[in-house]
Amino acid sequence: MNNTGIDAIAFYVPELFVSMDNLALARGIPAEKLKRGLGLQKMAIPNVGEDASTFAANALLNLINQNNLNPNDIGRVYLGTESAVDGSKPTATYAVEIVENELAKTYGKRSFKHCDILDMTFACVGAIDALHNSLDWVKQDKNRKAVVIASDLSKYSLNSTGEYTQGAGAVAVLVSHNPNILAINDVWGVASKSEGDFFKPRRTYKKTELLKTVFTELNLKISDKNIADFIASTNSKFWSDTNEIVEVFKEEPVFDGQFSNACYSDRITEALEHYNKQKTTDFSTHWNQIIFHLPYAYHGRRIILDNWLTWIKGTNLHSQLENEIGKQDVSNPKEWSKKAYKSSFYTDFVASKIAGGELASSEIGNMYTASIFMSLLSLLSNSYNKNETITDNTIGFIAYGSGSKSKVFEGVIQKNWASKIAPIQLFQNLENRTSIEVNTYENLHQTKLDAPILNGSKISMDYVESDETNYGLRRYSMK
Amino acid sequence: MNNTGIDAIAFYVPELFVSMDNLALARGIPAEKLKRGLGLQKMAIPNVGEDASTFAANALLNLINQNNLNPNDIGRVYLGTESAVDGSKPTATYAVEIVENELAKTYGKRSFKHCDILDMTFACVGAIDALHNSLDWVKQDKNRKAVVIASDLSKYSLNSTGEYTQGAGAVAVLVSHNPNILAINDVWGVASKSEGDFFKPRRTYKKTELLKTVFTELNLKISDKNIADFIASTNSKFWSDTNEIVEVFKEEPVFDGQFSNACYSDRITEALEHYNKQKTTDFSTHWNQIIFHLPYAYHGRRIILDNWLTWIKGTNLHSQLENEIGKQDVSNPKEWSKKAYKSSFYTDFVASKIAGGELASSEIGNMYTASIFMSLLSLLSNSYNKNETITDNTIGFIAYGSGSKSKVFEGVIQKNWASKIAPIQLFQNLENRTSIEVNTYENLHQTKLDAPILNGSKISMDYVESDETNYGLRRYSMK
Repeated sequence: MNNTGIDAIAFYVPELFVSMDNLALARGIPAEKLKRGLGLQKMAIPNVGEDASTFAANALLNLINQNNLNPNDIGRVYLGTESAVDGSKPTATYAVEIVENELAKTYGKRSFKHCDILDMTFACVGAIDALHNSLDWVKQDKNRKAVVIASDLSKYSLNSTGEYTQGAGAVAVLVSHNPNILAINDVWGVASKSEGDFFKPRRTYKKTELLKTVFTELNLKISDKNIADFIASTNSKFWSDTNEIVEVFKEEPVFDGQFSNACYSDRITEALEHYNKQKTTDFSTHWNQIIFHLPYAYHGRRIILDNWLTWIKGTNLHSQLENEIGKQDVSNPKEWSKKAYKSSFYTDFVASKIAGGELASSEIGNMYTASIFMSLLSLLSNSYNKNETITDNTIGFIAYGSGSKSKVFEGVIQKNWASKIAPIQLFQNLENRTSIEVNTYENLHQTKLDAPILNGSKISMDYVESDETNYGLRRYSMK
Repeated sequence: MNNTGIDAIAFYVPELFVSMDNLALARGIPAEKLKRGLGLQKMAIPNVGEDASTFAANALLNLINQNNLNPNDIGRVYLGTESAVDGSKPTATYAVEIVENELAKTYGKRSFKHCDILDMTFACVGAIDALHNSLDWVKQDKNRKAVVIASDLSKYSLNSTGEYTQGAGAVAVLVSHNPNILAINDVWGVASKSEGDFFKPRRTYKKTELLKTVFTELNLKISDKNIADFIASTNSKFWSDTNEIVEVFKEEPVFDGQFSNACYSDRITEALEHYNKQKTTDFSTHWNQIIFHLPYAYHGRRIILDNWLTWIKGTNLHSQLENEIGKQDVSNPKEWSKKAYKSSFYTDFVASKIAGGELASSEIGNMYTASIFMSLLSLLSNSYNKNETITDNTIGFIAYGSGSKSKVFEGVIQKNWASKIAPIQLFQNLENRTSIEVNTYENLHQTKLDAPILNGSKISMDYVESDETNYGLRRYSMK
């Protein structure tokens, strides 16, 4: 077997969070629905000055420091993100710049001088693509080491149905030969179909229409000529721009939740089939644990139910299930599925194979590309805390990115995994975060604040350049 | 030697162009400066409905049709672009969707069902990254085939210094074993440094400030309370958005031309050193031709001069050069460099090794990620037209992406290259485009037109969805 995989892992989650109890109270809905139904407890909220670059920089720095890595030995840093801060300059370059500056006192300047740095974009599966490609690169030379970072922030409108599934943060992994944590097999199931289930389009507006709306609604009589004269004479960069159309970027996605669930389900089913064609696998027994992309904590256990029912068809387990909840009712399949979901057999399946990977998601919320990596870290940290023997366990990975694509692959836990997980103290670190009130969260959400609240984060954006030749360039520093 | 590389190549360039003669006349500057100094002749202008998705779709469809490829055999479509149309959904998915629909009559629906589709972003080097990663993937199984697409549009403000270096289009290549065109060696020189020489930031504005500017400049007495009331009550999506800050995307980059040249020069010098460390190479003699990323046609010949002077130091050629233009003058190195640039020896070097790769750039302008791929196609098409024997020639590739990274690698021309280049008829196709007047170009540039001019392009965006659940989703069709 090929012996390449994940040698080390590190994470970063913003210091601030809002509890579901507080948010549900403010929105006048029962908290139990979010907690019991979706597994939500807290959601991470970025401070002022935090973005996908700073999350990635934090995770990269933690990975290097916690594992005594020499940055000169890292041949690539590939970042998966759907929260890129620029349309051309990779967010990974900002992250590496912060870390390179911080490490200069130890390793001198330009310790990433010959490192291949890149951003990859495919919604929530982009960082799995970065892992996939980095494994291919590392495999070819026993001295190669690569870092893969998943960094994102999930932002939905205030009072919207998506508001409860926000979150933020980054996970970084080191890919190498003879990995200490997880060896990843060569078989990859892939399924793609172009869909508009979730995306981040630019919203286009005609500048003159924006002005006319204001004048009409304020009952101001301003002629088209007045508007044209204003646009021709103003110094405002926004209004004087020569494009008649203004394109607005919003972090908040456009999405159709139900349709996206259907796309997720269809793509992972197709990717599992593709995997099975390459390597015949009894998924229900072969995988000791299953790791998912998790938009919310319980999403994996919900989405995989139908596949599980297919997997166990014709087996003894299926008969036992029918003994418990009755025969599959073709006239009301939904009702029967609900019973199956609550059955002791599916509950056991979830408890033994899925639940450990959900715990961190409940505490953080949706990390988009980083969710599946965080789910792995959650599983490992939980197993470590419970002193479970998981060496040689086979882990199935089911990744999904809207738009849409799924990738399915598997890995085997390596014998030194615990020594790499112990120092991370995932759950202890999550316990040590700071709760903020809903109104503080709302101020952060609406970009009302000019300065970080509390102490601010260790790595933070200081300012944005305003000179013409570097207008919009972000400047970061580390405390 | 590893025998993986480029088996087939195809391109797409918009039907419309503006000539430098016309543009220079309209701007009141001498056309000869642009033509002789920079090698500019024409620049490609996208029609209404054309974007990075449609360019990519056209190039992909041309690649498939011209080479009788079965889409089911293509295991990945990786796109390098810095003109992505969405922040989350890859532009590659839009391109594949158009092509998949078009091919449905021949191959049925979902002919890309198990294809790995992805966007990569690193300014102008992102598509070379896609090539690099796809080679690594193809290498591992003799049946694998991958498509790499480079697709971009280069847009600069009207009347700006960058206006002459616009352009647009896409190139697609098929990566396979035993390639017909170019076998690519395994050695890659890489150099990275985070710089702000060229980027596409989001411009942030406070909504209330945008309104105050209007009211102040139009001498309207509107109070802060009026503004707050308007924002609270309006139905305008733009003005009612809960974020106080609006983030504007612009296709036009922020850049510092001189600084970017310096970054380009420094990174390629470092990447050449990195290449040389892995495989000692006399670049001045070993490479029969050199292909560059070309922001404008003559950029490669200008940027490589200093490296060439270093390469020939201590050789007979250097003595001959000094015989022609005098000894290197340390008190005025710039003047001596200018003489070296115009020397017969450097002119010969450019004519034999660089000029063939510049010809298409002169006709199209800056294609960003696609420029280096188009330069390869230009070289091959020119050699074909001139009936040159180039089989077994070694081609050096010098790629650069702002922000900043360089990659250096080499390939060897394969014996069947001409049979793959002949049907493409690059220069004949470029000759058959349609010239547009400067005022038509300006209307397109300013997004003033609602419908395509002339016949419009074969693959085009029809409309943008406006329903809430798919607001902003682009819908394309093929005539």
